[in-house]
Amino acid sequence: MAKDFGVWEGEVTTELPGQTDAGLYFIGRIRTPWKERKDCPKNARESDAVCTVELDERWAAGLQDLASCSHVILLYWMDRSPRNIVLQVPAHYGVQRGTFALRSPARPNPIALSVAKLLRIEGRVLSVVGLDCLDETPLLDIKPYFASTDSVPEAVVGWHQRRD
Amino acid sequence: MAKDFGVWEGEVTTELPGQTDAGLYFIGRIRTPWKERKDCPKNARESDAVCTVELDERWAAGLQDLASCSHVILLYWMDRSPRNIVLQVPAHYGVQRGTFALRSPARPNPIALSVAKLLRIEGRVLSVVGLDCLDETPLLDIKPYFASTDSVPEAVVGWHQRRD
Repeated sequence: MAKDFGVWEGEVTTELPGQTDAGLYFIGRIRTPWKERKDCPKNARESDAVCTVELDERWAAGLQDLASCSHVILLYWMDRSPRNIVLQVPAHYGVQRGTFALRSPARPNPIALSVAKLLRIEGRVLSVVGLDCLDETPLLDIKPYFASTDSVPEAVVGWHQRRD
Repeated sequence: MAKDFGVWEGEVTTELPGQTDAGLYFIGRIRTPWKERKDCPKNARESDAVCTVELDERWAAGLQDLASCSHVILLYWMDRSPRNIVLQVPAHYGVQRGTFALRSPARPNPIALSVAKLLRIEGRVLSVVGLDCLDETPLLDIKPYFASTDSVPEAVVGWHQRRD
């Protein structure tokens, strides 16, 4: 495993279960300008690069009505991440944290989530702003973003706030 | 398949791929008051019931630092949903829509997402408000909710707005 995606000093792992419980289909690919992890923005609001989401033909009819949404939630698969790390030390923080208190791609199910601004849909290709993942990342899902249930402006991540 | 979770008139299906591309671990269970789909709230803000998220012992160390978060994103697996529907007719709207324009559990990868208020963590059990899923739903992930990247109060779902 490349060092980029390995287990670092101060990190704690657990034994993975002997088998998985459910299967995922990759339903498309995300195209971004970033070919290596070190080039990716640290979070999705750091870049205003226009990225594209290419949905496979099989699912294309499912895009109906989506163009009326200003923002979408994209779920994608961080396929190069270790899955057995429960305590980790993100390089840019340098402090050990629990996996579920972080948005790190290293987690038991490496499903990443980004809220992206939807610019347009042409055929089965979405143009969006607000992604931070590697080029060719496998797509898992596209959902409409509902401010009524998904937006919590007052939410606080205490450990992150205290860091400032 | 129970009628609750089947394919309805006006719905359009696609052929599923011959195999899945990645595997998921169920990392815990969500406990809610709702035993049947008809009892579930229509969306996660409709109920203020306190639900619990029971993480398996294997992953428990990963909860470190999470208690400092006011809100969490929960990903869970809607294991009774058909995965081949691309155009569907939600009962409470009665209009055909594309799967990716809906938050319906019927989708190629039935991963549901809820933003929940975190009340407390005791051992490996989280108490939260803001879920709408069936009791015993398999848990896939817990993430901290960052208002800076996850909250978009001005987001619009056009088809839903016009419905009013």
